[in-house]
Amino acid sequence: MNRDLNNSAAIAGIGATEFTKNAGRSELALAAEAVVAGLRDAGLTPADVDGFVTYTSDPNSEIDVARAIGANDLTFFSRVHYGGGAACAVVQQAAMAVHSGVADVVVCYRALRSRSGSRRFGNSAAARVPAKPTTETVNRWDWTLPFGLTTPASWVAMQARRYMHDTGATSVDFGQVSVAARKHAATNPSAYFYNRPITIEDHQRSKWIAEPLHLLDCCQESDGAVAIVVTSLERARDLAQKPVAIAAGAQGAAHDQHTMVSYYRPDIGSLPEMGVVARQLYATAGLGPQDIDTAVIYDHFTPFVLPQLEEFGFCKPGEAKDFVHDGRIELGGELPINTHGGQLGEAYVHGMNGVAEAVRQIRGTAVNQVPGAAHVLVTAGTGVPTSGLILGQDPAGRG
Amino acid sequence: MNRDLNNSAAIAGIGATEFTKNAGRSELALAAEAVVAGLRDAGLTPADVDGFVTYTSDPNSEIDVARAIGANDLTFFSRVHYGGGAACAVVQQAAMAVHSGVADVVVCYRALRSRSGSRRFGNSAAARVPAKPTTETVNRWDWTLPFGLTTPASWVAMQARRYMHDTGATSVDFGQVSVAARKHAATNPSAYFYNRPITIEDHQRSKWIAEPLHLLDCCQESDGAVAIVVTSLERARDLAQKPVAIAAGAQGAAHDQHTMVSYYRPDIGSLPEMGVVARQLYATAGLGPQDIDTAVIYDHFTPFVLPQLEEFGFCKPGEAKDFVHDGRIELGGELPINTHGGQLGEAYVHGMNGVAEAVRQIRGTAVNQVPGAAHVLVTAGTGVPTSGLILGQDPAGRG
Repeated sequence: MNRDLNNSAAIAGIGATEFTKNAGRSELALAAEAVVAGLRDAGLTPADVDGFVTYTSDPNSEIDVARAIGANDLTFFSRVHYGGGAACAVVQQAAMAVHSGVADVVVCYRALRSRSGSRRFGNSAAARVPAKPTTETVNRWDWTLPFGLTTPASWVAMQARRYMHDTGATSVDFGQVSVAARKHAATNPSAYFYNRPITIEDHQRSKWIAEPLHLLDCCQESDGAVAIVVTSLERARDLAQKPVAIAAGAQGAAHDQHTMVSYYRPDIGSLPEMGVVARQLYATAGLGPQDIDTAVIYDHFTPFVLPQLEEFGFCKPGEAKDFVHDGRIELGGELPINTHGGQLGEAYVHGMNGVAEAVRQIRGTAVNQVPGAAHVLVTAGTGVPTSGLILGQDPAGRG
Repeated sequence: MNRDLNNSAAIAGIGATEFTKNAGRSELALAAEAVVAGLRDAGLTPADVDGFVTYTSDPNSEIDVARAIGANDLTFFSRVHYGGGAACAVVQQAAMAVHSGVADVVVCYRALRSRSGSRRFGNSAAARVPAKPTTETVNRWDWTLPFGLTTPASWVAMQARRYMHDTGATSVDFGQVSVAARKHAATNPSAYFYNRPITIEDHQRSKWIAEPLHLLDCCQESDGAVAIVVTSLERARDLAQKPVAIAAGAQGAAHDQHTMVSYYRPDIGSLPEMGVVARQLYATAGLGPQDIDTAVIYDHFTPFVLPQLEEFGFCKPGEAKDFVHDGRIELGGELPINTHGGQLGEAYVHGMNGVAEAVRQIRGTAVNQVPGAAHVLVTAGTGVPTSGLILGQDPAGRG
């Protein structure tokens, strides 16, 4: 249906700060640094920017970023809700703006100090319920928080437990995701867990956070920022880097979905919103799971990686528990995932660092490069309305 | 540049709740009622909806509205920042989504209980500065709040005073906007100020809020919701109402803009972001000010209406103070504005009720109808990054 967007826009630049536990500077400084780095990577300047897209949860106003980098007038600015669910949607929005002619150069950014600043998930949800609840906060918390489900890990644990019951998956299966991520991070100098691989025994011995989630099933919280520079594929061909075509972008929210607590659907062990995204992505790109060379699968918590592999057709429903073994998701395997180390190993930048890794894979510049990667899938936040991208080579081969 | 979007999408339905000072029900109930009313108006059902767009400041999550009305999967959801500056941008976003093929029926909504709920502007800004300031809140408040500029009226007063100095405009000139709005509201049964016109003497006698702003220069705060249903122009032709073509949509933020406190630009009496919007709208629609039959000019505070008339070329810079006199902006005048009564007279729904009025003018169903209105301009929030629309007749004339 949205074949219109197929390869009309491209990612021309990527930029990032270092990923740490304490950036020592403001979110605005982080955002501005990442945006300027992305523009420099593309061979563009702040004066070329006429659009920004970010997350509703980003603390940096588009006009503050514009002022910080020295940009001029803006003709496009937009945000996507639902935390990490926005990671790919922001790029899709940028592609839409370029495709529709409302902007020429749109920069997507996300900056967090979720570790050193006001921690995103550092306190229990109870502490974060506003004094004057809105409709949204009432809907989010009323039916779960009073019963002790007060943290993201606890919300995911509920769905993970059901997934285990339905499919026979075990904690060791979840652990494979973590081991693969940390293996990839270990060779990535940008990763927080550079040089620190783990074994499945480390995973099993790590403390419980919320059963069945061990510590090593949960991503860290990070300080850092990432920016993605989007322009038309045509213009990207004249810029500094080999263009990375946006073969497809899609958003998805499924019937009767809640934010992180979708416990009232017929099946609470699956992620139907990822199916909504997958069907659109494959239809727009004219591709199927067999065409994907490597994937960035959103991994703030390991259990949600398994149903994503199923929703995207890399294996049959219930079979991801077997698929993730035997190095199949590691570099050199059938479907290497999260070659940068993922959010488990590199950093938790709400999925934007995964988009940057997909760009490097298509450029052929990833630290853990999949040889000849032609199509890379990226997924966004799980448990929330979400999004996805398929990035690919310039179909004209001029890159 | 964005001629692509010209007349590719249309507004097929509008819906609203009543506008009051105490809705007696939640924002979610208000949003759902407006959305369902808009769909019914279009001859559509909740099952037809696959996208939503709203403001970052709206308290209703897209998935909560979807659940409340009984919608299914969503493939598009997006938000626009900057309060009332989003009023027209949400419709542009919907048009982009339809144009790009990512959704078929996108509903824009805005629901407030700004009077009876947690009042949007009922308390001073000082009370609303969060305990843990983010980059954005620091940037917004640090340079003004400590010096006593603690309310929206006070922020606008600063710019109004400069505009008066630059142009010779007086409080009586600002008052013309209010008198016209209340005249139109007086004949609009949906308006909060139905049957309650005012004279310029009433305006002049009303108490000071923040000099040079009288009480009657400031819009009320309201409870209510409005929804706008967008689909392709082609599909709209098969629906219940005469299609209202989206001739153009645009956003604009100007160099070195701040949110409501743009006091550091060379000229603080003007609204250059409206110029950014105006140039795009006219270019996309292939129209000029002489083609606009009636306009909805954002009027949360009267002084900002005058520079908008200048930015959009209805008069020369500095001449709006004369333009607004002699019934020129009233029904029957050269450019009737805010024929529903505006936010000053109908309700403050962050500009969404103005989009609905523009639709009625094109349909020919407004209470204060401008005969044969072919093109209607709508503007969004002033003092913030903003947006605009030009709505028109179906160019194929099949409506």
